[in-house]
Amino acid sequence: MDKQTFDRGLEIRKSVLGAEFVENAIKSADDFNRPLQELVTEYCWGAIWGREGLSLRERSLLNLAMISALNRPHELKVHIGGALTNGVTREEIREVFLQVAIYCGMPAGVDAFRTAREVFAQLDQKV
Amino acid sequence: MDKQTFDRGLEIRKSVLGAEFVENAIKSADDFNRPLQELVTEYCWGAIWGREGLSLRERSLLNLAMISALNRPHELKVHIGGALTNGVTREEIREVFLQVAIYCGMPAGVDAFRTAREVFAQLDQKV
Amino acid sequence: MDKQTFDRGLEIRKSVLGAEFVENAIKSADDFNRPLQELVTEYCWGAIWGREGLSLRERSLLNLAMISALNRPHELKVHIGGALTNGVTREEIREVFLQVAIYCGMPAGVDAFRTAREVFAQLDQKV
Amino acid sequence: MDKQTFDRGLEIRKSVLGAEFVENAIKSADDFNRPLQELVTEYCWGAIWGREGLSLRERSLLNLAMISALNRPHELKVHIGGALTNGVTREEIREVFLQVAIYCGMPAGVDAFRTAREVFAQLDQKV
Amino acid sequence: MDKQTFDRGLEIRKSVLGAEFVENAIKSADDFNRPLQELVTEYCWGAIWGREGLSLRERSLLNLAMISALNRPHELKVHIGGALTNGVTREEIREVFLQVAIYCGMPAGVDAFRTAREVFAQLDQKV
Amino acid sequence: MDKQTFDRGLEIRKSVLGAEFVENAIKSADDFNRPLQELVTEYCWGAIWGREGLSLRERSLLNLAMISALNRPHELKVHIGGALTNGVTREEIREVFLQVAIYCGMPAGVDAFRTAREVFAQLDQKV
Repeated sequence: MDKQTFDRGLEIRKSVLGAEFVENAIKSADDFNRPLQELVTEYCWGAIWGREGLSLRERSLLNLAMISALNRPHELKVHIGGALTNGVTREEIREVFLQVAIYCGMPAGVDAFRTAREVFAQLDQKV
Repeated sequence: MDKQTFDRGLEIRKSVLGAEFVENAIKSADDFNRPLQELVTEYCWGAIWGREGLSLRERSLLNLAMISALNRPHELKVHIGGALTNGVTREEIREVFLQVAIYCGMPAGVDAFRTAREVFAQLDQKV
Repeated sequence: MDKQTFDRGLEIRKSVLGAEFVENAIKSADDFNRPLQELVTEYCWGAIWGREGLSLRERSLLNLAMISALNRPHELKVHIGGALTNGVTREEIREVFLQVAIYCGMPAGVDAFRTAREVFAQLDQKV
Repeated sequence: MDKQTFDRGLEIRKSVLGAEFVENAIKSADDFNRPLQELVTEYCWGAIWGREGLSLRERSLLNLAMISALNRPHELKVHIGGALTNGVTREEIREVFLQVAIYCGMPAGVDAFRTAREVFAQLDQKV
Repeated sequence: MDKQTFDRGLEIRKSVLGAEFVENAIKSADDFNRPLQELVTEYCWGAIWGREGLSLRERSLLNLAMISALNRPHELKVHIGGALTNGVTREEIREVFLQVAIYCGMPAGVDAFRTAREVFAQLDQKV
Repeated sequence: MDKQTFDRGLEIRKSVLGAEFVENAIKSADDFNRPLQELVTEYCWGAIWGREGLSLRERSLLNLAMISALNRPHELKVHIGGALTNGVTREEIREVFLQVAIYCGMPAGVDAFRTAREVFAQLDQKV
């Protein structure tokens, strides 16, 4: 493990997904999934999100599109929250998912919209 | 068909993919694939790309990511060209495809990089 | 938007999925997902389902197969209901999903059968 | 192996894909891929295509849609030929692939159309 | 149906997934899904798992990887249980899913780990 | 970058794929794809292949299955070669791809077999 990349990853991951969420994920890790937590932190968040060349906002746009295409609703929820944090508006999320509907197919678009509405409903309830 | 959406789509499609390429695609269409050409022009390019809310540059970023995830190299080539036209730099395409490698898996990343290098080689030869 | 295509799409959508279901989907739409509802209605149901060349029954068969392949259980449920409305029998749905099992892989077949049984159980309970 | 299912599969496979093509596939099989040839013949063509409940024409429609969704152009070519043999017209293949474009996404539709045109060009050259 | 392959499949299926689970699946089958149950038993478990050339343990490793890639959590749960029965340890399952994370993408890895933890929690509760 | 993980990755990558192949990939890298080469070497080959818990032979089996499922023939070729180096026999590759045919669908199996035969033909020609 590259300590510097890991630390940079941890910092970005917390700033995008929320410190509490990330600390919880790491604290609740056991021997089984700790290597995954470390890989995600170092590799996704340190080695990729930590790169220059695209803004955090642009990286969030990419993830919304890719994770919809990959059909992974759990991760999509996490990254819808992250996108809002990174300055992507709900209107822009709508635009991404309309483009998903055309390029990944209508069922992918319908699923992405339903997932987004669930996230928004949870957020609006908290306020 | 909504003539206004179609015309707007045709204009955007030409500006992104090149007038010659698009006119060729439409001219070479026969009875079999003409309905597809019309669908692509009206719905992809008119009804989606023609929307406000995201810039052409951002829509190109999304397509690079999604079409890599969908494993469609022919269309990826077309949209790498389009992305360059829309102001995405080669360095930014690299960033998108590194993020593809992490979220869609290493083989998806390797394939996207190979496709991009083929497009760049063709472009560099033309000059 | 092409009003004529939209209206034709709305009519077909209601006749396949049920007027109440569709009216509910449209009524419960907010600013966020209204553009998706319109796209689905005009584009899926007007521009494609509204075409001649294949019967509604045949289009339902295609959707059962494709949506199973795409791994989208929410939409699959909707289209199992629509297929029954379009005259596809439960025995024919079984045949489609056995073919899915061979061509898309056994887990895709197992999932499609489980989804169908859930839909059938709901329908049988209503009676 | 169930000899009866295998023989029935061989007969259907030949009638759909052409006797020459199938005999060639079986004759050119070596120890490495002979078990696959047998599996394909017995299970795909005997145990599934040999079932009643859907016509050969309908099974061809399903395969065109599924194999497009699965992104497998080699097999798609084979089954476009088979669909024509089973009485699916070129106009109907067009309808299937327009529906693919909507439900599996535009790049899937574009690829399916290109593949079909390649098959048609080969067939038209033979005449 | 090949009775011998079916019987061999039934035996292996029971030994991997548990006699009670399999008998339940077969007993609860109705006219709708009985052909699937037979296909799975004969074809998956008899014709493939019943082959020599790879051990049951190795076939379980393959299934963990493939079913993660295919994004089918229901079947993944079943095969995590089967893998444990076939002598794959929890530490080895972890290794498989870390490799999934790299080759199929991080969201596939995250989902596979979550599914495994659910299975482990259920098993640990039973004891 | 973690130099130790990178070096370990480079060593394993060379031992599996061949020193010449890997040195060529690295030497021919330009500014565009060098970060990918480094990512592949450090993370795939160092952080994952370099882990204990599964043998190189078992990791090759997993990759054959996953990369077939992911529909990435270029990478599949590379990993068929690597699997042979890691002690997987051609008969065992056949077993993997028969299992792919059942779980990922027949077209995935057919494509994997064709790819394997191409690799074997190239290897046999070299001798």
